[in-house]
Amino acid sequence: MKQYLKHHEWQIIEEGFDPHVNKISESIFSIGNGRMGQRANFEEDYSGETLRGSYVAGVYYPDKTRVGWWKNGYPEYFAKVLNAPNWIGIHISIDNHKLDLAKCKVEDFRRVLDMKVGLLSRSFTATFPDGKRVKVESKRFCSMAQGEIGAIRYALTPLNFSSKTTIGIYVDADVVNMDSNYDEKFWEEVYKEATPGRAVVTAQTKKTFFHVTTGMKYFIQSEGKNVDFERFNIEVREKFAGNVLQLDLQEGKEIVIYKYAAVLSSENHPKDQLVSACDNVLFDASVKGFDKLFEEHARVWTHKWEECDITIDGDVAAQQGIRFNIFQLTQTYTGEDERLNIGPKGFTGEKYGGSTYWDTEAYCLPFYLSTAEEKVARNLLVYRYKHLPKAIENARKLGFKDGAAFYPFVTMNGEECHNEWEITFEEIHRTSAMAYAIRDYINYTGDQTYLSQYGLEVLIGIARFWAQRVNWSTDKNKYVILGVTGPNEYENNVNNNWYTNYLGAWTLRFANDAVEYVKKSDPKRFEEIVRVTNFNDVQETQNWKKISENMYYPHDPNRGVILQQDGFLDKELIAVKDLDPKDRPLNQKWSWDRILRSCFIKQADVLQGIYLFEDDFDLDTIKRNFDFYEPMTVHESSLSPCVHVILASKLGYKEKAYELYLRTARLDLDDYNNDTEDGCHITSMAGTWMSVVKGFGGMKIKDGKLHFSPYTPDQWKSYSFRLEFRGRVLKIKISKSGTETILESGDPLEIVMDGKVISLK
Amino acid sequence: MKQYLKHHEWQIIEEGFDPHVNKISESIFSIGNGRMGQRANFEEDYSGETLRGSYVAGVYYPDKTRVGWWKNGYPEYFAKVLNAPNWIGIHISIDNHKLDLAKCKVEDFRRVLDMKVGLLSRSFTATFPDGKRVKVESKRFCSMAQGEIGAIRYALTPLNFSSKTTIGIYVDADVVNMDSNYDEKFWEEVYKEATPGRAVVTAQTKKTFFHVTTGMKYFIQSEGKNVDFERFNIEVREKFAGNVLQLDLQEGKEIVIYKYAAVLSSENHPKDQLVSACDNVLFDASVKGFDKLFEEHARVWTHKWEECDITIDGDVAAQQGIRFNIFQLTQTYTGEDERLNIGPKGFTGEKYGGSTYWDTEAYCLPFYLSTAEEKVARNLLVYRYKHLPKAIENARKLGFKDGAAFYPFVTMNGEECHNEWEITFEEIHRTSAMAYAIRDYINYTGDQTYLSQYGLEVLIGIARFWAQRVNWSTDKNKYVILGVTGPNEYENNVNNNWYTNYLGAWTLRFANDAVEYVKKSDPKRFEEIVRVTNFNDVQETQNWKKISENMYYPHDPNRGVILQQDGFLDKELIAVKDLDPKDRPLNQKWSWDRILRSCFIKQADVLQGIYLFEDDFDLDTIKRNFDFYEPMTVHESSLSPCVHVILASKLGYKEKAYELYLRTARLDLDDYNNDTEDGCHITSMAGTWMSVVKGFGGMKIKDGKLHFSPYTPDQWKSYSFRLEFRGRVLKIKISKSGTETILESGDPLEIVMDGKVISLK
Repeated sequence: MKQYLKHHEWQIIEEGFDPHVNKISESIFSIGNGRMGQRANFEEDYSGETLRGSYVAGVYYPDKTRVGWWKNGYPEYFAKVLNAPNWIGIHISIDNHKLDLAKCKVEDFRRVLDMKVGLLSRSFTATFPDGKRVKVESKRFCSMAQGEIGAIRYALTPLNFSSKTTIGIYVDADVVNMDSNYDEKFWEEVYKEATPGRAVVTAQTKKTFFHVTTGMKYFIQSEGKNVDFERFNIEVREKFAGNVLQLDLQEGKEIVIYKYAAVLSSENHPKDQLVSACDNVLFDASVKGFDKLFEEHARVWTHKWEECDITIDGDVAAQQGIRFNIFQLTQTYTGEDERLNIGPKGFTGEKYGGSTYWDTEAYCLPFYLSTAEEKVARNLLVYRYKHLPKAIENARKLGFKDGAAFYPFVTMNGEECHNEWEITFEEIHRTSAMAYAIRDYINYTGDQTYLSQYGLEVLIGIARFWAQRVNWSTDKNKYVILGVTGPNEYENNVNNNWYTNYLGAWTLRFANDAVEYVKKSDPKRFEEIVRVTNFNDVQETQNWKKISENMYYPHDPNRGVILQQDGFLDKELIAVKDLDPKDRPLNQKWSWDRILRSCFIKQADVLQGIYLFEDDFDLDTIKRNFDFYEPMTVHESSLSPCVHVILASKLGYKEKAYELYLRTARLDLDDYNNDTEDGCHITSMAGTWMSVVKGFGGMKIKDGKLHFSPYTPDQWKSYSFRLEFRGRVLKIKISKSGTETILESGDPLEIVMDGKVISLK
Repeated sequence: MKQYLKHHEWQIIEEGFDPHVNKISESIFSIGNGRMGQRANFEEDYSGETLRGSYVAGVYYPDKTRVGWWKNGYPEYFAKVLNAPNWIGIHISIDNHKLDLAKCKVEDFRRVLDMKVGLLSRSFTATFPDGKRVKVESKRFCSMAQGEIGAIRYALTPLNFSSKTTIGIYVDADVVNMDSNYDEKFWEEVYKEATPGRAVVTAQTKKTFFHVTTGMKYFIQSEGKNVDFERFNIEVREKFAGNVLQLDLQEGKEIVIYKYAAVLSSENHPKDQLVSACDNVLFDASVKGFDKLFEEHARVWTHKWEECDITIDGDVAAQQGIRFNIFQLTQTYTGEDERLNIGPKGFTGEKYGGSTYWDTEAYCLPFYLSTAEEKVARNLLVYRYKHLPKAIENARKLGFKDGAAFYPFVTMNGEECHNEWEITFEEIHRTSAMAYAIRDYINYTGDQTYLSQYGLEVLIGIARFWAQRVNWSTDKNKYVILGVTGPNEYENNVNNNWYTNYLGAWTLRFANDAVEYVKKSDPKRFEEIVRVTNFNDVQETQNWKKISENMYYPHDPNRGVILQQDGFLDKELIAVKDLDPKDRPLNQKWSWDRILRSCFIKQADVLQGIYLFEDDFDLDTIKRNFDFYEPMTVHESSLSPCVHVILASKLGYKEKAYELYLRTARLDLDDYNNDTEDGCHITSMAGTWMSVVKGFGGMKIKDGKLHFSPYTPDQWKSYSFRLEFRGRVLKIKISKSGTETILESGDPLEIVMDGKVISLK
């Protein structure tokens, strides 16, 4: 845990330059716009510790799988989020001394991320070894208004000298991924050109042949006028294009470099038109200029914040935390492109690879359902519908047949690309996250038509998977599910993980209901689905029914609790609080076998199931299970605390709820898990939002109605959030003295507040 | 399965050249002498599919571990058996055409391994693209009499031309390992020199800094006289030294190249004396000459066969099979050097890496106990005693303490170097293979002094491991062992694997007994051990007793069988014979998760325990368990069939026993598992020997006496084997008409034959 950032309601502020936290800041201060993103690397050269990262949505590399021992069923590749061509680079040298913060004395360093308008600023004074001092102020953003534009304003003032300076401005595709499995570079040059004031490089990824064209135009001004260059060179080498210029710096006189970058991908343009499209984008950008571009960009942010802001009064750290989470989520995924998804690190790092985990359905969907128009959440669902053929192929590779669909644990295009057998092959619950998301979407939006249009085909595939994955235990006289890993990844290859069994059986019932619904509501479409999926509706649904009615669920009759899996009670049951603090986090301190044998739970497992199917359990049951499992939970997954916040809130455990809220809200800002330098935990940020809205606010949908049972944590004065719900916009303000609910737009609506029906007009 | 080799009692014979089986033959026809070994690669250049392999005992490379996802506890490196410098190479070209069997027409190809004398011969006629025909006859061996010498006789006859030929004779350390994790070369040059008729290269391994000096001298003769060279060149380049000569070939006139190689390692010589020692060895070899060297070598083989041959009358395939197994075992490990051990591929391939698995104790020890002097088996035990400090370190890395010893799954120097968590961390039964080996040794030899000298320290370490590895289950009111992999590696991370629990509890009892014995028999040494191991004998042994008396053992009261592990009965119980043959072998056809969920057993697990502790179970119990588990066993480990042969023999299941015997005896010769090209399954070859002696012969030790209950498989007329036992040599001849037991040397002895005591004089 590190707490070096200043607390502020709207800004993330770093003061003073500490190279040891630079990589953490590079992650936290990242900017993006759903199409592209950029870690908070310095524009100028930096020879200190850094993880340079530029990312382009949807562009990946299928890096050959690396394992110690190959097991049948492993995928051929692990998709890497690509470090894309560098568009921010500005090289500065003065009298042959490079401006490099690792080699200068740095003073008055300040890095600020203004979340309200999506602007990264940085300023500092640097003293060169020869005593020359310069002041630098840089600002940059990735335009939320035009997703292919990045803009930089880089101001340089010589404080105590006049001298010649050399400035290099370039785009560079000769970049590496830190996590390349075989130390390969993933980009090849297709085209490059530099002309005065402009440079363009088109690079293509090996194997996948994505083309990305990165271009830049720049202007250098002083006192509002373009400056004259003394010398000017075109600099072109492999995968690199730029200009190098020499000009006179005069003591005390600021020069300002405006660099406009365009990043275009062949996902959105024909390959042969990328360069001309790039030039068009650059032309438009340079005509508008930095201030106008920024104004358009900031306007989008203002609108976004109107949609999804959460205010917290009386706790600046909590306010900053929740806004940081919402900011990152919003700049990672805008919902406009149904081919995209929410990578676990967004545009803030390359770790984990792949873009899509079950995080999307289980954690992110509720956020986008409530804070964006319906089509955003729907696009997330359609994304998985489009991957259905690949999910069927994934299942076939593992030995399933007849159209069973096994959604991947990690994917870019629907193909599995994770390679730990205990997760890839065994963490099977994720395939039903897709089914649950359909239910979630329909519950929230009331849009049942999704079932006939897309949903049923997916549900049939998933239900077929479960029907083949169970087996009949003559010993138990029940259906069992063997060899799985549940959400708690500190258990591997267990039998009858309760969460998995429960979710599997629920999926079979839900698919059954969906079959009945579509059969009745849209018989023609139903016939089409039957044909396309080769569906034997009588026989298959009967089988689903038989399985779901005869599923085995492990439990402990003595304690009256659900058992996480068979044999759980053989473990030594120890509370986390009784662990030696030296042993935490377990995943860094203990050997894997010791973790596996222990009772300690990485993330909500039984409690995840209770959270998802809350209405299936009475409060006593929830309490007994929470009281049993919470003390053994180490929350070493970023996805864990939010679920506990929601259940703790329901049970009135306010202190526990608040403790876990802080852990999720400031996970990256305070580097709780000592890994923010790799990138931020984007998907779990939706969990922070859920902690407030579903936890403290007690929001849920029941029988098509919004329910609330809000309370205010002791540490806060009040808080508020906004929801979009079936064409309405609601604002909910909660304070210790009561709750105010405002219907900002849309038709009248009945909601249920603390069990009482209220009509909103 | 491939059956291209001719059946012969003493020889392995390949006729006709088929490049598709060349790598299989390279494995099968390998030669070695315990110090060095060589795959049956061609002396001349070969551009077809080949796995070039020369190996030097004890020389390895700690290749950086490669995994997909790092888990705490993984070792830093995986020790690779090193492909050592090439000493066999002879380059031949005629009029600029290389002699390369992949590019010539090959006729009359014959490769013969004469196991009686350890000689590899090869002959063929090759036609070059320009029509020139040559006949080649080569012979080579690795001297069993002088472990640092290899000798080659290579005869070349031009059949239809007279012409100039160029001959290159060299040693070459510029070799690669096929299984290098990061495509590195492991050798660096230290020294090289070529003089007329001689070349020497000293290479050292990276990181481990083993030095290996490989030298050669050669003579070229025609009609018994040295031939004149027309041209002569020294050829030296990085890691390579040799001579290149030109001479006239005359049609029909044979020239013979005698190449003597010396391979010396810094394990046996001071580094600075390697080259001079090498020259001495070469000098001696060249003075003796090929025939004399061979005579000395063959004499050792004659003696070895006298010690350990098994004859089978009436079944040439079975006779060839058992001799091949004994031949390979004998040339892999001679027992003279206590630093060495029996690698799973011996000197026939590099797969699996590491030199020592639990195979040594569980499978090989009985072979060496019965067929060699006592010190050979004792050296195998001392090897592990010397690794005790490393075993304690291995345990500490995984979180165990107070001197607990966890022997590695694979090792070179005692350090663990395997990297699958489910095996490395969880296949814990192997640590007790070391305890069982001590018992086996004492039982066979009667040499109790081993306990006080070495054994007890090891047993205390291992017992401490078990005492920490168990935990008390309040649910079962017993000690349980969670998260293990048993011998059947088609189950991972299971709870209460019966074999593991049984072996763990036995170890605690055995260690307890050993403590009592040494305390009484050698109180002074006991005190020393107490001091060295910081042993609290009262408290620790009481704890061991408590655990072993309260261990939990899974069983099925309905079927009256032991359960392989908790939850085994949840599986669908299907017989192997009901599998679609297309699905076999499972490990090549099924995904890993499907294998794990299935009931199919890779290798004896419960039955392994029953085999080891045979006297603890009545015949009915053995039968019930065999009848339950055998039908589900796929024997996809080479270590499996022999155990089933032994138990099937005991139960009178003669057909089953014979079927499984053939599988183990001809596993490599007939390439049962489609993997012989990687090398032969050396350690399981001892299982073949056990199948005959302990299976068909029913040999066991009880109360210090040799017991037999022999029968003759229907397919055989008779068979015989020899045993060394407590200073005696016995020969046992078994036929359908009866058993003849001859005491060839040593004091009179009582044995038990079919339950009756017989006195031998």
